[in-house]
Amino acid sequence: MDDTELVSLRRTLHKRPEPAWREFYTTATIVDALESLEADIDELYVGPDALSGDHRLALPPETELEAWYEQATQYDVDGDVLETLEGGYTGAVAVIEQGDGPTVGLRVDIDGLPRTEADNGTHEPALEGFRSEHEGAMHACGHDAHATIGVGVIDEIVDSDFQGTLKVFFQPAEEVIGGAKSMAKSEHIQDVEYLLALHIGLDHPTGEIVAGIDGFLAVAHLEATFSGEPAHAGGRPEQGRNANQALAAAVQNLYTIPRHSDGQTRINAGLIEGGSAANIIPEESRLVAEVRGETTELMEYMREHATRILESAARMHDCDLEIELGAEAPSATSDQALVSIVESVAGETPGVDNVLERDQLGGSEDATFLMREVQENGGLACYVGIGTDHPGGHHTSTFDVDEASLRHGVDVVTGALERISQERPSA
Amino acid sequence: MDDTELVSLRRTLHKRPEPAWREFYTTATIVDALESLEADIDELYVGPDALSGDHRLALPPETELEAWYEQATQYDVDGDVLETLEGGYTGAVAVIEQGDGPTVGLRVDIDGLPRTEADNGTHEPALEGFRSEHEGAMHACGHDAHATIGVGVIDEIVDSDFQGTLKVFFQPAEEVIGGAKSMAKSEHIQDVEYLLALHIGLDHPTGEIVAGIDGFLAVAHLEATFSGEPAHAGGRPEQGRNANQALAAAVQNLYTIPRHSDGQTRINAGLIEGGSAANIIPEESRLVAEVRGETTELMEYMREHATRILESAARMHDCDLEIELGAEAPSATSDQALVSIVESVAGETPGVDNVLERDQLGGSEDATFLMREVQENGGLACYVGIGTDHPGGHHTSTFDVDEASLRHGVDVVTGALERISQERPSA
Amino acid sequence: MDDTELVSLRRTLHKRPEPAWREFYTTATIVDALESLEADIDELYVGPDALSGDHRLALPPETELEAWYEQATQYDVDGDVLETLEGGYTGAVAVIEQGDGPTVGLRVDIDGLPRTEADNGTHEPALEGFRSEHEGAMHACGHDAHATIGVGVIDEIVDSDFQGTLKVFFQPAEEVIGGAKSMAKSEHIQDVEYLLALHIGLDHPTGEIVAGIDGFLAVAHLEATFSGEPAHAGGRPEQGRNANQALAAAVQNLYTIPRHSDGQTRINAGLIEGGSAANIIPEESRLVAEVRGETTELMEYMREHATRILESAARMHDCDLEIELGAEAPSATSDQALVSIVESVAGETPGVDNVLERDQLGGSEDATFLMREVQENGGLACYVGIGTDHPGGHHTSTFDVDEASLRHGVDVVTGALERISQERPSA
Amino acid sequence: MDDTELVSLRRTLHKRPEPAWREFYTTATIVDALESLEADIDELYVGPDALSGDHRLALPPETELEAWYEQATQYDVDGDVLETLEGGYTGAVAVIEQGDGPTVGLRVDIDGLPRTEADNGTHEPALEGFRSEHEGAMHACGHDAHATIGVGVIDEIVDSDFQGTLKVFFQPAEEVIGGAKSMAKSEHIQDVEYLLALHIGLDHPTGEIVAGIDGFLAVAHLEATFSGEPAHAGGRPEQGRNANQALAAAVQNLYTIPRHSDGQTRINAGLIEGGSAANIIPEESRLVAEVRGETTELMEYMREHATRILESAARMHDCDLEIELGAEAPSATSDQALVSIVESVAGETPGVDNVLERDQLGGSEDATFLMREVQENGGLACYVGIGTDHPGGHHTSTFDVDEASLRHGVDVVTGALERISQERPSA
Repeated sequence: MDDTELVSLRRTLHKRPEPAWREFYTTATIVDALESLEADIDELYVGPDALSGDHRLALPPETELEAWYEQATQYDVDGDVLETLEGGYTGAVAVIEQGDGPTVGLRVDIDGLPRTEADNGTHEPALEGFRSEHEGAMHACGHDAHATIGVGVIDEIVDSDFQGTLKVFFQPAEEVIGGAKSMAKSEHIQDVEYLLALHIGLDHPTGEIVAGIDGFLAVAHLEATFSGEPAHAGGRPEQGRNANQALAAAVQNLYTIPRHSDGQTRINAGLIEGGSAANIIPEESRLVAEVRGETTELMEYMREHATRILESAARMHDCDLEIELGAEAPSATSDQALVSIVESVAGETPGVDNVLERDQLGGSEDATFLMREVQENGGLACYVGIGTDHPGGHHTSTFDVDEASLRHGVDVVTGALERISQERPSA
Repeated sequence: MDDTELVSLRRTLHKRPEPAWREFYTTATIVDALESLEADIDELYVGPDALSGDHRLALPPETELEAWYEQATQYDVDGDVLETLEGGYTGAVAVIEQGDGPTVGLRVDIDGLPRTEADNGTHEPALEGFRSEHEGAMHACGHDAHATIGVGVIDEIVDSDFQGTLKVFFQPAEEVIGGAKSMAKSEHIQDVEYLLALHIGLDHPTGEIVAGIDGFLAVAHLEATFSGEPAHAGGRPEQGRNANQALAAAVQNLYTIPRHSDGQTRINAGLIEGGSAANIIPEESRLVAEVRGETTELMEYMREHATRILESAARMHDCDLEIELGAEAPSATSDQALVSIVESVAGETPGVDNVLERDQLGGSEDATFLMREVQENGGLACYVGIGTDHPGGHHTSTFDVDEASLRHGVDVVTGALERISQERPSA
Repeated sequence: MDDTELVSLRRTLHKRPEPAWREFYTTATIVDALESLEADIDELYVGPDALSGDHRLALPPETELEAWYEQATQYDVDGDVLETLEGGYTGAVAVIEQGDGPTVGLRVDIDGLPRTEADNGTHEPALEGFRSEHEGAMHACGHDAHATIGVGVIDEIVDSDFQGTLKVFFQPAEEVIGGAKSMAKSEHIQDVEYLLALHIGLDHPTGEIVAGIDGFLAVAHLEATFSGEPAHAGGRPEQGRNANQALAAAVQNLYTIPRHSDGQTRINAGLIEGGSAANIIPEESRLVAEVRGETTELMEYMREHATRILESAARMHDCDLEIELGAEAPSATSDQALVSIVESVAGETPGVDNVLERDQLGGSEDATFLMREVQENGGLACYVGIGTDHPGGHHTSTFDVDEASLRHGVDVVTGALERISQERPSA
Repeated sequence: MDDTELVSLRRTLHKRPEPAWREFYTTATIVDALESLEADIDELYVGPDALSGDHRLALPPETELEAWYEQATQYDVDGDVLETLEGGYTGAVAVIEQGDGPTVGLRVDIDGLPRTEADNGTHEPALEGFRSEHEGAMHACGHDAHATIGVGVIDEIVDSDFQGTLKVFFQPAEEVIGGAKSMAKSEHIQDVEYLLALHIGLDHPTGEIVAGIDGFLAVAHLEATFSGEPAHAGGRPEQGRNANQALAAAVQNLYTIPRHSDGQTRINAGLIEGGSAANIIPEESRLVAEVRGETTELMEYMREHATRILESAARMHDCDLEIELGAEAPSATSDQALVSIVESVAGETPGVDNVLERDQLGGSEDATFLMREVQENGGLACYVGIGTDHPGGHHTSTFDVDEASLRHGVDVVTGALERISQERPSA
């Protein structure tokens, strides 16, 4: 694929972003792209064949899945592929066998975010006509670029000196930390000896590469439902048990969990809703929160406090509480042997003018599930940062990528895979 | 209409409840029922002709109106009537001219509530097959019975000794205090010399009538939108401005407004929502609240404090705030001359075994707009309570009425109107 | 006592206010005043002999009692009397036997408040040199006037046509609702057939008398102690369990207890303290709150919610909680027979230019303990309001009384007692 | 001084702990101890001569100073010295001139904490009879040991090969970050070329030395006073403006300031108080808080948010606010040249069995003022950790030191000073 084709694929994906487990059009489009490559894909696992369905985390409601599926059916994509995906079995694994050598993996994620994209004269996608057509959804974290790089690497690897088996994991549902576990529990990862994952941007400019990213915060989601008792707010306020008050007390106090001297922690009550009308004492409310920690222990510290606070807030306002533990991901570390290879390859890649050996993510990523699986099987893993100028921050409505970095991603990753297949480093 | 017909109409309405300004099917069904009566309606004003469109308060979003309108079109009702109502011009005014005499009005409200109806073996509507077909909406305050009584009174008045003009106001959007003002600002109310309004239930058992209800709490709605700044909750929490935190601080503190020694006050943060995902610092949140007071002054006291608290909560978490003042209604008093007539008539009505002269509502009602309009024009007004055994409280999922009280309502009101036309009392 | 003597006694008491159970100088001064009267007091019970020591509520710490006692010993009062009072046995009961007739009681309270008195050119006590010498304490509710009226009534009754036995209860510790129960449980109240109590001011101007005051809010105090765990706030914040956070969550939420449609309720977290230094996670905090209700049931409703909120706030921040139930008082009603006598007498009293039959207190008073005791024994009770112009509100630093009303109080009460002894009304 | 004498001095100080700026007995005792040494002190600056009086931060109220001064006068210490200290001019600087060489400084702090010491069978000071005689005050951070080591070093240095001038700064008021600035602004520090400071414990066991401690959190104090309006809580709750509610909203929200991805931050609302009585709407409340950050920028981030939250909380409850900015301290770093010397000396010191080159404090220390002053003047500074087994954590009631570590402190510091005077390292 030349630069124009990379840009074109990225824009195609950008225009129709789909949030976690709803990547129907996205997966089908990736499959289309793979099948249009000159090279033959040796094996292509799609949907339920690409992952362990029972380990999908943080699935949306059925009605959501159906609505997005329905939408996808109206686009010009392969209906047979779509049907395979129905019910939220999105994603794919593509396999290239190219001579004798190790089995190496590349993981790219493909989902969008529930966010409305900016629509003004300074936002490139709006200017150039590839702004999200799905109002309220947006590729605000660059996964459109990731998927594109994944396809680009396959295209390039067949012309390289790579020897061995390459598996590219097009992973769904990263944004809800929901997809990696199902791929980590599939058979496809089990024989992977070396795994690369990548992310674009992260405040690194175009031309800068981070050979090994660490500092993945362990993360867990909690969904709390407060159930009270409705009552007429004017006539009988004392007969109500107010679920919005319980939620407000919870939100106020969740953010007060003591900071920890062992390292960074995080808390966010990202989504709330409750009550039905101004004149009814609110009967039910719901809160989706996440906790994070520099280590899994710190994350657990946060989760324990958060749970106690939720319970106390419910009791404080005489409400019942149900807590559903949602998705979670561990932390992980990039192995030095791979970091060194990436660093060296990046230094020789055209367009790359700065290489950092290591940097901290300071966020979470469920790639850690796959990295840990490979590492626990005796393999090595490394998470690579591909710098790109991005006008708005990640997850904001003005996020965008510098499309020049698509090529950098393809080249650095392909080069590193090639070298890994030759050097077969050990820990 | 005999008892069976009253019950049948009430159940027809109960089955398809429509919230405020969405009473498309309801209005069309009432028009159908009026046109099926033996008696001729002299004038029938529907939709935009029944009210002052500009004075409609608390309108829902266009998309809501459209979805409910769309639904109504699928029912077997008069399409021409429906078309008149499109855009949220619901309700009707029916006029009967019957000889020389005063112009009297009867106001009944017709809207449902955004509440899911109970569905179990003890809930009569579920047992008897007329439970709400509109999941999430319910006649949980008896307005189905009110509308039925309104039709029943017209049917009965033509056979009575009533002399004069009767106008029945089938008022939309009482539950959001949104409809009465638009009828109070229409021409129809201007020549009304005597006005009755009624409510069923209110914790009074079947067979009990309250001749004059007072104690209407003045009420006002506030809708607050907090706007912050999104950010990645793991990577850059400090770059966010958290709209959910602002809302939580607001809800916590709204309920703390000091009680007032001059009388009862109320506050409710009935509806909240905010944020988009667990991992994004919430950028926007919304709160719909109401304040009430035994007098308009007490309501204003609450509104002033609530406004200051909302502003401070926004500032506390560095968010912007927009407050939209919503619907509001004054308080009102039933005139003694009418109370005495109702009391006397009720005492002679079959099935009525207890009559209270006065009682307190302890809630709000936008009937007060119409009552005040009539009173300010020199007329008299009275708000009548029709007892009915109701298993669940008003606005709860198990609310239901004892259908025997439909007849009591029709008889007491018709009798009172008859007597009023004869006695023409003055204040 | 002439007007000058009344004023003089009131100012003597005003200058040295003593809070609840610390009325050492005050009691001794009252005893002095009684002994200086021309009339002989037949029996005088002081301190432990005036009340049931075991039923004293809301006693302050020993050290407080000692410090105030110590201070009193430095004034020119009878040392023997003082000694009797040591340990917080304050107050007195004076008995006058004057021929055959019923036993009637008059209750006046004598304690000051923990409040700093205003000290500026518009505050009469400051101008006239009788501002509180006890910095931080103040007669901000007129009990100095009450005690003075009590003495004045005894002086006047001996020259009146009163026939029977008069007992004047100089009651301590009203402000903490702590003293009346101990007098209600003493033998002195047991044979009282008619009881008057009085209060000056209450927003009624000089010259206005309220014959019977009702609307006493039932009240109860709660003292909560939160115990956490200290830790260095910089080095190990996660090791603390923060008692100030628990208290803040409690205060925030106590004020949110739903208003009750059955009547007025109150809540106040009047006194808080916690922690030891800026850099230590606060280990202990304390909260003194009160709840009130128009009826005892409403007060219990508030207390139940308050208790649950305190418990939940403690748990929310992982603290232990101890709740000490403090003083409490019921509600009570003035008997009509006595109200009528007071109304009639007041109408004939010089200087009184307006008489209201009834008014609502809207606050609490532990006189209700004594009123209920008398009423339960078959007697009658009445609480009289003596109007006085007061520049600042009750309990504020600029409160003061119009000394002309001292005479009104003495005359109305003496006249009423005289009439009661003659008429011996029954319920 | 032999070990017994070190222990004896430490216990003498431990028994009579004095909080910040109240170290009257402590300073006088140190002066006594210095004058009892065999060696002559060349210059001894006491009280106002030891510091810049105008730069004392976080002074307590006059009455506090007076009460503690009064107490000190009752002990057997030099009255002339005491008089010098009156008014909160505590601390001392002792100077030893010993031949040609650089001017080096040693800083030890001397104040206690407002904390009640444990009194049970496992707390050594209680068992051995040197528990605090000042109830409510305690040497809970080992400054008694610091002062003792300061004296011990002077005693030992005169017998060492140290060549140059040694200044020992016995610094008051570290716990309130109040004393160091006044010494940093005095003339005594201006010619110091090398500065050592030390702290005992910090979770390092007896026998462990940390050559250079870093990670001082920048810190600032804020004292907020909320002023509202009192009112009778039962009678006129609406007339109050509730300062306790304002404070509770502030405390709740202060702890919610977003964590920062640039590094550690801290917040603590360590001390609160408000209101006067259960039945008065609280008129005034006070809050002493501190904010910290890994860098001064992070501390400023916290202070800015805290200020906005305090202002909003006041406004939310209609109160006025006054914020007094209190003490603050920057961060600082130990210079490698000195760290290397301390590390090397410690490795050769008897009793020392483990030496760490560097560790993080994770707390704050106003020694940073002195370190920065020396560093800005071109000198070098180093903060040394002296391990000691301590049963309870710093600032808790069971804190205690293993007295064996007194000798380690004296030896390591004396050895390091000796070596510094010989090597005269440069940055």
